[in-house]
Amino acid sequence: MFKETFQRYISMIEQFLAQLPWDKELLNQSMYYSLIGGGKRIRPVLALASAEAVGGDPQAILSAAVSLELIHTYSLIHDDLPAMDNDDYRRGRLSNHKVYGEANAILAGDALLTYAFELLADPAVGQPEKQLRIIREVAIAAGKDGMVGGQVADVAGEGKTLNLSEIEAIHKGKTGALLTVSARLGGILAGGTELQIKALSDYAQALGLAFQIKDDILDVVGNSEILGKPAGSDLRQGKATYVSLLGLEGAEQQLKAQIQKAQSALEPFNEDATFLSELAYFIEQRQH
Amino acid sequence: MFKETFQRYISMIEQFLAQLPWDKELLNQSMYYSLIGGGKRIRPVLALASAEAVGGDPQAILSAAVSLELIHTYSLIHDDLPAMDNDDYRRGRLSNHKVYGEANAILAGDALLTYAFELLADPAVGQPEKQLRIIREVAIAAGKDGMVGGQVADVAGEGKTLNLSEIEAIHKGKTGALLTVSARLGGILAGGTELQIKALSDYAQALGLAFQIKDDILDVVGNSEILGKPAGSDLRQGKATYVSLLGLEGAEQQLKAQIQKAQSALEPFNEDATFLSELAYFIEQRQH
Repeated sequence: MFKETFQRYISMIEQFLAQLPWDKELLNQSMYYSLIGGGKRIRPVLALASAEAVGGDPQAILSAAVSLELIHTYSLIHDDLPAMDNDDYRRGRLSNHKVYGEANAILAGDALLTYAFELLADPAVGQPEKQLRIIREVAIAAGKDGMVGGQVADVAGEGKTLNLSEIEAIHKGKTGALLTVSARLGGILAGGTELQIKALSDYAQALGLAFQIKDDILDVVGNSEILGKPAGSDLRQGKATYVSLLGLEGAEQQLKAQIQKAQSALEPFNEDATFLSELAYFIEQRQH
Repeated sequence: MFKETFQRYISMIEQFLAQLPWDKELLNQSMYYSLIGGGKRIRPVLALASAEAVGGDPQAILSAAVSLELIHTYSLIHDDLPAMDNDDYRRGRLSNHKVYGEANAILAGDALLTYAFELLADPAVGQPEKQLRIIREVAIAAGKDGMVGGQVADVAGEGKTLNLSEIEAIHKGKTGALLTVSARLGGILAGGTELQIKALSDYAQALGLAFQIKDDILDVVGNSEILGKPAGSDLRQGKATYVSLLGLEGAEQQLKAQIQKAQSALEPFNEDATFLSELAYFIEQRQH
């Protein structure tokens, strides 16, 4: 049942991405190249599932949900640049700047971020007050006090010995804020109550930390081929991770605690949140 | 009268920029560094003047108007990067990446673009339908089919011999789209009629081309010290410009024609558009 629902969401997302008006021109091609690079589509999936958890129709919020994947993709393109993480590969394919060059990769990222807000303001959604609230929340989550701020802190922290609370602060900005707003987006646009929106926030925040802890664990125990990138690369780069700070067992315990927190947050929901509950379990168990 | 009105707009803009919650943290500092780098503030000025031209209160649309300056500033930071124009100076000061490094400059640009949409979605404006329309228009003007698209075409055209229509297409995207939406933003948010909004569009589009033609002329006849950058740099970079294609006299004629077009577009307005009319004259005459 979980797999079927996941697949249904993924199909909706992929179909929506494919039918956007991409032309053959260079910029469109480079944006699309990175967008269809696969990935787990966790952010739009979270949004669609949250819409269903509050009794809404995921199809009605699809354009807004997909905008989150555009923002995530732009951040990956910029993160991979030589001036940042200098990664030649992303999900087993050449990174955007290795295919299109640095200038075009910077611009493809800029255009994806901008396009996300075009989608969020889609008049066809027909809920201006809620859309405006979402646009503001997404901008805050993706911006200087959220994702970009986390990335700046991450760059500044390179080569330094960070403690657990510093690492958590970086992750909350870098990945947590956008994941949290993804769940909120679904809840808000689908007409959830403020109590439900708060519960979805708490769920997604815990899920985001669990996701990051699992990433750190997989970097140590994972299989390079399944991961699509060399295992152990964080350690080799001297990055402080949950594993380097807490040990493998300590990180596993933290992972369990966050998953438990995510599950508790779902208590106010009925069986509509079954998928979200299983998604937390899926993230705990994932191998890549 | 023109100077006083211009100064009144500039004061509103600078005050608004200064009171935004910039903290001492690196990212905020680098965003602010580029924002207060001066410049003519043409985009927010256009928005404020357009609001007044349709009988509205410019103060009521100030946050939206300033968002345009954030977008313009982000584009300059990214344009100056080594992978793009590789400019060490901007308006006589070190460019962002020369002060904060490339990674932080990329991220400061990203954060400014994102922050612009946060401001556009400001609930205090209290006009969700109009704000949503504006957000969509700004995203389109700043994105793949507007500013970013123009920049990609510009990068792709380097070293090639472009003709006039190709150059005009690049400028319409690179600078024209955002200037046009600046005037529209003021007209829409201040409650202008669709006819007035169309007139403001036509005005701003002609103004934008005039601005670019004047830029090309100043690059040839300008004084490096007044310009804040070396005169003749376009020519040395082998860039096709209005002057290289039309000659100095031909470019001057084109400039006059566009200014005339801008003035004609203002005919439906009464004296509320005096400032916009004088702004066109100012751009024709400017020395930097």
